[in-house]
Amino acid sequence: MSAYRLYGDSRSGNCLKAKWTLDYLEQRYEWTEISVLEGETRTPEFLALNPAGQVPLLITKDGGALAQSNAILLFLAESHGGGLVPRDSFARAKVYEWLFWEQYSHEPFIAVRRFLKFYLKKPDSEIDPKLLERGLAALSRMEVQLAGAKWIAGDAFSVADISLVAYTRAAHEGGFDLNAFPAVKAWVDSVEKRLAIGSR
Amino acid sequence: MSAYRLYGDSRSGNCLKAKWTLDYLEQRYEWTEISVLEGETRTPEFLALNPAGQVPLLITKDGGALAQSNAILLFLAESHGGGLVPRDSFARAKVYEWLFWEQYSHEPFIAVRRFLKFYLKKPDSEIDPKLLERGLAALSRMEVQLAGAKWIAGDAFSVADISLVAYTRAAHEGGFDLNAFPAVKAWVDSVEKRLAIGSR
Repeated sequence: MSAYRLYGDSRSGNCLKAKWTLDYLEQRYEWTEISVLEGETRTPEFLALNPAGQVPLLITKDGGALAQSNAILLFLAESHGGGLVPRDSFARAKVYEWLFWEQYSHEPFIAVRRFLKFYLKKPDSEIDPKLLERGLAALSRMEVQLAGAKWIAGDAFSVADISLVAYTRAAHEGGFDLNAFPAVKAWVDSVEKRLAIGSR
Repeated sequence: MSAYRLYGDSRSGNCLKAKWTLDYLEQRYEWTEISVLEGETRTPEFLALNPAGQVPLLITKDGGALAQSNAILLFLAESHGGGLVPRDSFARAKVYEWLFWEQYSHEPFIAVRRFLKFYLKKPDSEIDPKLLERGLAALSRMEVQLAGAKWIAGDAFSVADISLVAYTRAAHEGGFDLNAFPAVKAWVDSVEKRLAIGSR
């Protein structure tokens, strides 16, 4: 039985969400560490695998190369059951909605501010204030949603929860205080339990 | 027979791609014009429909509200056939990959630079040079792909083509010269013909 291969940087939430999904679905895989900071996504060897020069990158059992973290989550969820994508078409579309929202309205602010503060050690004065403002807006949007629903896309645990928890649980490293968002904080605990990844 | 309702700003490629998909699939819908520039996505009435305050927003025949342009495209394609999402799971995942790439690596640079130049009339000197640099990188990535494939996600016309054409065909309004990307330019023509939307 062949296994998946996942190229990823273990400091990247985008990569970890793919790893957690493989673990949750009990799939065999080999992890190849690729350091973004050390330029390992820009080597000729890696660019031959993914011309976009980004991790995570999943190599399927058939040798196909698939990029974009949330595309990987959907592919794995559709391939291996586990209930991570709803069967009902509208409920599934709401999962898509949150996955696209995560990449457009959450990750570019919360993950990027964390990267600048936590990894590059930039002082706040050198960080675009929009990152804080829009990151807080994203957390507020999640708070409204999670005050009225157990999981981010509604009644069922889904790949949208795995996707959104990746950077939300690390938001404090970007200078975001989750104590101001109690429903989000409780949801992070629930998703961590579900994924058995332990609290930070 | 009830119809869809689509809230959108007709200057927004994200909104037009949802409209074109409804047209392509020959679905009945009513269009409600919402001006982003005039703050109509931030009224209490609109925020009650979409707390994220963004267009497009699709109201389904059952009254469900669905946001995020690419989630709307997937929902419509899954609901009405038309071959816009492949049945094969890996081919479908490649469509997801391009849809997420569009929102993360294309739209934030090409659409945003067009918005600043064409609608807000900002001079180049006031526009972050990263928008040009990363927009050109996105077009180069598409050029490599389209030099070797008829459609953006491979052999079949899909929602990924509809999604990516929206801002690519308007890239010149953002100061991007498509003559430098001949495969992209030919593909824009093909997608416009397929969608019967006429050239710009």
